[in-house]
Amino acid sequence: MSQKAAVLFANEAFYLAFATRDLKGMDALWSRDAPVTCVHPGCGPLHGREEVMESWVTLLGNPASPAVEFRDARVFLYGDVASVLGFEVLREGVLAATNTFVKEGDGWRLVHHHASPLADSPDFQDPVPTRGPLM
Amino acid sequence: MSQKAAVLFANEAFYLAFATRDLKGMDALWSRDAPVTCVHPGCGPLHGREEVMESWVTLLGNPASPAVEFRDARVFLYGDVASVLGFEVLREGVLAATNTFVKEGDGWRLVHHHASPLADSPDFQDPVPTRGPLM
Repeated sequence: MSQKAAVLFANEAFYLAFATRDLKGMDALWSRDAPVTCVHPGCGPLHGREEVMESWVTLLGNPASPAVEFRDARVFLYGDVASVLGFEVLREGVLAATNTFVKEGDGWRLVHHHASPLADSPDFQDPVPTRGPLM
Repeated sequence: MSQKAAVLFANEAFYLAFATRDLKGMDALWSRDAPVTCVHPGCGPLHGREEVMESWVTLLGNPASPAVEFRDARVFLYGDVASVLGFEVLREGVLAATNTFVKEGDGWRLVHHHASPLADSPDFQDPVPTRGPLM
């Protein structure tokens, strides 16, 4: 598997854990060795694994937490660090997202997630979702 | 200078170029070797140096473009990649920001900027801005 494909695989695993509210899976996707940070829509930055994972416990434990699909994924490599940019499609609207990963052992682990609301609906470049459909 | 201090220095240079509408300075701060990306508030991801720099030409060339100061800067190192998270304070409101840098030659160059609106005003952790008052 190419590095870009491996990063995309990790990104898809993130949205699968998100959409299925799989907290154990979500926890396993985030780095345990590198610093982790997160910016949820409308919120300030969270620093550190404890604070970031607490936010996912809240989000995934909420029955109203959103189903999500990812569109127009683009991977950018910086050695053992990679970012995926794209759109999160929720029932409530569309967000722009940055997901940053580090290469650790057998795969890529999340170190940063930043999602933010869009002023207008985007024109998607890719005809089909990276993973889908909404669950 | 420690690596974290050098990254903070690059981050401050970014906001100085932003606040003084220094397009030449802004251009020099972004990497020419690594892929660059940008997510402006309310917007979708921009990919590639040309698209990203065009957005800064528009933003910095606009007389209404905002003065900005940066608060609560926190640096996170991943080898030759680093992220700075914090708040951008504008006259119009406060944004959460992620700025990602790569180490290139004599310094750190921007590869990614993501800024997003906050639902509520934050309680700043640091008593003074990372760099001085709104210009």
